[in-house]
Amino acid sequence: MKIHKILLGSVAMAVLPVLAVAQDAAEVAVPVAVPTDVVFILNSLLFLIGGFLVFFMACGFAMLEAGLVRSKNVAMQCTKNVALFSLASIFYYLIGYNLMYPLGDWAIEGVLSGLFPSVGVLEAVGIDASGADDYGYASTGSDFFFQLMFCAATASIVSGAVAERIKLWPFLIFTVILTSIIYPLQASWSWGGGFLSEAGFSDFAGSSIVHSVGGWAALTGALILGPRIGKYKDGRVHPMPGSNLTLATLGTFILWLGWFGFNGASQLAMGTIGDVADISRIFANTNAAAAGGAITALLLTQLLYSKPDLTMVLNGALAGLVSITAEPLAPTLGQATLIGAVGGALVVFVVPMLDKLKIDDVVGAIPVHLVCGIWGTLIVVWTNADATLGNQLYGIFAIGGFTIVASAAVWAILAGIFGIRVSEEDEVNGLDMAELGMEAYPEFSKG
Amino acid sequence: MKIHKILLGSVAMAVLPVLAVAQDAAEVAVPVAVPTDVVFILNSLLFLIGGFLVFFMACGFAMLEAGLVRSKNVAMQCTKNVALFSLASIFYYLIGYNLMYPLGDWAIEGVLSGLFPSVGVLEAVGIDASGADDYGYASTGSDFFFQLMFCAATASIVSGAVAERIKLWPFLIFTVILTSIIYPLQASWSWGGGFLSEAGFSDFAGSSIVHSVGGWAALTGALILGPRIGKYKDGRVHPMPGSNLTLATLGTFILWLGWFGFNGASQLAMGTIGDVADISRIFANTNAAAAGGAITALLLTQLLYSKPDLTMVLNGALAGLVSITAEPLAPTLGQATLIGAVGGALVVFVVPMLDKLKIDDVVGAIPVHLVCGIWGTLIVVWTNADATLGNQLYGIFAIGGFTIVASAAVWAILAGIFGIRVSEEDEVNGLDMAELGMEAYPEFSKG
Amino acid sequence: MKIHKILLGSVAMAVLPVLAVAQDAAEVAVPVAVPTDVVFILNSLLFLIGGFLVFFMACGFAMLEAGLVRSKNVAMQCTKNVALFSLASIFYYLIGYNLMYPLGDWAIEGVLSGLFPSVGVLEAVGIDASGADDYGYASTGSDFFFQLMFCAATASIVSGAVAERIKLWPFLIFTVILTSIIYPLQASWSWGGGFLSEAGFSDFAGSSIVHSVGGWAALTGALILGPRIGKYKDGRVHPMPGSNLTLATLGTFILWLGWFGFNGASQLAMGTIGDVADISRIFANTNAAAAGGAITALLLTQLLYSKPDLTMVLNGALAGLVSITAEPLAPTLGQATLIGAVGGALVVFVVPMLDKLKIDDVVGAIPVHLVCGIWGTLIVVWTNADATLGNQLYGIFAIGGFTIVASAAVWAILAGIFGIRVSEEDEVNGLDMAELGMEAYPEFSKG
Repeated sequence: MKIHKILLGSVAMAVLPVLAVAQDAAEVAVPVAVPTDVVFILNSLLFLIGGFLVFFMACGFAMLEAGLVRSKNVAMQCTKNVALFSLASIFYYLIGYNLMYPLGDWAIEGVLSGLFPSVGVLEAVGIDASGADDYGYASTGSDFFFQLMFCAATASIVSGAVAERIKLWPFLIFTVILTSIIYPLQASWSWGGGFLSEAGFSDFAGSSIVHSVGGWAALTGALILGPRIGKYKDGRVHPMPGSNLTLATLGTFILWLGWFGFNGASQLAMGTIGDVADISRIFANTNAAAAGGAITALLLTQLLYSKPDLTMVLNGALAGLVSITAEPLAPTLGQATLIGAVGGALVVFVVPMLDKLKIDDVVGAIPVHLVCGIWGTLIVVWTNADATLGNQLYGIFAIGGFTIVASAAVWAILAGIFGIRVSEEDEVNGLDMAELGMEAYPEFSKG
Repeated sequence: MKIHKILLGSVAMAVLPVLAVAQDAAEVAVPVAVPTDVVFILNSLLFLIGGFLVFFMACGFAMLEAGLVRSKNVAMQCTKNVALFSLASIFYYLIGYNLMYPLGDWAIEGVLSGLFPSVGVLEAVGIDASGADDYGYASTGSDFFFQLMFCAATASIVSGAVAERIKLWPFLIFTVILTSIIYPLQASWSWGGGFLSEAGFSDFAGSSIVHSVGGWAALTGALILGPRIGKYKDGRVHPMPGSNLTLATLGTFILWLGWFGFNGASQLAMGTIGDVADISRIFANTNAAAAGGAITALLLTQLLYSKPDLTMVLNGALAGLVSITAEPLAPTLGQATLIGAVGGALVVFVVPMLDKLKIDDVVGAIPVHLVCGIWGTLIVVWTNADATLGNQLYGIFAIGGFTIVASAAVWAILAGIFGIRVSEEDEVNGLDMAELGMEAYPEFSKG
Repeated sequence: MKIHKILLGSVAMAVLPVLAVAQDAAEVAVPVAVPTDVVFILNSLLFLIGGFLVFFMACGFAMLEAGLVRSKNVAMQCTKNVALFSLASIFYYLIGYNLMYPLGDWAIEGVLSGLFPSVGVLEAVGIDASGADDYGYASTGSDFFFQLMFCAATASIVSGAVAERIKLWPFLIFTVILTSIIYPLQASWSWGGGFLSEAGFSDFAGSSIVHSVGGWAALTGALILGPRIGKYKDGRVHPMPGSNLTLATLGTFILWLGWFGFNGASQLAMGTIGDVADISRIFANTNAAAAGGAITALLLTQLLYSKPDLTMVLNGALAGLVSITAEPLAPTLGQATLIGAVGGALVVFVVPMLDKLKIDDVVGAIPVHLVCGIWGTLIVVWTNADATLGNQLYGIFAIGGFTIVASAAVWAILAGIFGIRVSEEDEVNGLDMAELGMEAYPEFSKG
């Protein structure tokens, strides 16, 4: 880093090579535009980088949740997070992707494409270089990889709220339905060219489409499950502190990192200077919103309780991230910070409110993903002139209504058929020993 | 994310800027092809991104292994992982890289290049912009960086299998031989233009060349060391559960993340639409195989033991990843899922089989990296029409035979000269106190 | 990975598509040069990738420090790390960035730009594609995002040294001053076109500008705070071992990963083959220096104390990274390894020296970031012919003198107004219960 770009820019430009496209020196020109094949490559690269960053969010959720449950349920929380991501990978491929972006006989094609090489969502190996025009604006494989990660993130949101009392297999069956049908179907309304996109509903990277859907599914699950034993006893709230706050901090940082891919690559294109400048705005705004959320939660817990609360600060950062997700591009940095800050405040106020309603959300997924998902979707109207409050409310209600009904139906059916809650004895002993027969930290004495 | 690409693609194309390469509007054309300098940049960038992702796998291995050993050996496992990566960095540079890609007097040049700026594996600073043609298809520095990470990964595989009983320094000396000679020499047979590549042996990203080599070295080490005290006593297998399963989960997720670079950047080029589409296939397939492996291990442990086993699920994901590594490009998503699923099943069945043979592999490196490395290399014939079973077996035996002999010789020599196993007392007390004089978790009471 | 590039390079070149820019086949030419819009995109992409890697260093610092403090102070250390990064994000935006790169009425503009969309550090949304020439050489948003992370890293360095005894809020106020004024002001001298860059001071990615500034601020803080209770009692040094060495190892690996972005993206450009080859050199050299530092610390602690010390090995790797940061481009791999090795040795010798001086640096931030920051800045003269010892000393003294005076003044004022040290009782009980009312590991018995 020799010196800053603004000062050096003109020098850098001056040394750029000049392309000789013709023999005649008079016709030599500095090329400006981006060749279409390069556009295709850069767009695909954006999806791949964004995709691996969002993939890492699966790890972030696992660490956050493993840190916020009690040690007797930690191995189960890890198991659920690995399994839900894996199931999302399989079922979004088999069913979800083609349901979200219908291409004809989606379901059959999706299933068949798994076994027969001639049918599938990916381009053939080694498509030729006759030009990107034949292949759309990015590789299908990169798009699938990126979209899959959004679907999986939706499922990750649910697992934290219903932790410490839900049975493993019913939870995983719910995950299958969520990732193969519920998420893709409603996502197609906005991102698959469906009625919400036509109505003008605006949700850039998924405050509603991803986060509130995960949040609604979590809320219906938490309601049908009921609170953990002892959480609300004798009219009082009994805190059940997380067993490992360094893991929760690690998970939050990983999620924050992944969010640059989540929001940034939702620009969907990196082949023009306008696109890359927009992605840059999104990165900066996403970070600003997280910072605003964290600091607000820190200040508010200091003011309200005289002691800052690390868990709230972590959830405040995540709240800021969810809040900016519906519109990370249009705001200025100051607006992004404020949007995130309101998100952080919402978490501080909604967490005790849920406790008053005896809704037991182990990790705070409902305030973070549902409440701030709605907040983020509404506040789009502040900075994006194309969005209207009516359209945003329309989207929130359509997505929320569908997800509530569908999730509640699935939870209820699972409860009716298998039961979704472990026995009282198993819950008291912890899911790790009861369902897995192992402990996350077998050597450390519990105090 | 306004709307999906397939629907918007034509619009996106329409707004692409048109390059004016000549005054006459009639001659204006949309450029399609990728300039050669851009190809060079994109190829190098692929190596750098792939390289830092594979670098992070060193952290993944460290966390996985630190989580799966008992707490009294955790600090040692961390020490070994940092040290082995560092030694790989130094000795692959000094000897290995030039041995793998012989450029003349490799050994001398390699050593000298360290001290004399005029000789070396890197381009000069600020190579001029007269055109990439003079410099091959990517920067040597990026290629070195990427290849180094593969060499280091091979060494990381060994440390888990021989954990909890091997002495630090003999292990590190083995690492030096492995990374400067054993790995590079056999890798040159396939990737340096040697006899295996000429014979038609096909191992895209190293199921055999990296993973089985690490696995064979681990197996010979585990055999020569013998099992941990008390592991096989009175004709029974005594489980020694890992001390920290959240760490093991973290390590698995990090390895999964790194594998996108491991397999994806093994495409070795990103400068055409065909290359980036292939990389996208690889990303998607790599993920699918991991998912298939994890879910299979989950289902099988549920079916066989009535309780899912988190450690098996984690190793199942890794098994899927190793299995797809020999051919991550050709399979469809469904085939990739199945290839990974078989890998996951192999781990579930091979782990108890090793215990019956009293081969004590602390973290499951042999089933994951050796058995699935062989499986992955064989199954290439299913999806890659250029591969034949004969050629694949030829490669497996050539690589395996050499690595077994070379590793066993080195282990035996080290055992003869220094002894490679700690004293019984040190093993019982734990390597942390015995060899390092410190504990990983000094404040937590052990139960 | 079919075969190595050097062998295949010519083939790869041969299949590159030929661009038809004119009707006449005789005029068809393979394009070589990089269009200016592509340069802009690649430069911005470098900042974004580098930026998210350096962002992740905030997590690395948090984990390192959380692992090296005693368990009673872990939640506080996490809180401080999340909060300091968030405050850096807000105040570098509000004040620091424009102070570092003055653009006119920086302070006012910075503040106003937060609330009024028309003023700001980011380009407008969707800048048009008429050509990158109008927008400098990369997007401002990407540059801001990248530069912010350097500012935040400086603040992260401080928190470890003053851990376990400083009050939360005075520390955070110091962070605000550091990130809005102290860091940006001195950074502008070198990177904003100020007097140090004009004088010929050379600090590529910030051995002095980032690391020694953090180190000086840490040193003044540690001196004014004084050592922890019981650390130097009865004329002896009482070790206070870190509570979780796996976390410290994780943090070190994450920092190592992030450093590829830190040093690599400080090349500031990726739009020519020369730039990407230089970035590749930097990646390889950065890794080599870390390896050299780690192995040297391992060998030295073995030789000096008969037992290798994991904490020293980790700090040795970090020392190598800091040492190479002032000039990661010019050295050969061998020189980089040696520069890092000296850094690793410095840590081994300086840590006990500080203890003799009763300077209590909890995590080793002063040896790693200050001492090796100075070492790295001086050794630039070995490999970079443009650097002179005089200029390097000038920069070290100018930056050091200013930072010492400014930091000491701020610490002293804070100490005078609020007091910066917690009460003896709170320190003994731990900051987690005293200031936060929570524990990081509430269930694990302390031994």
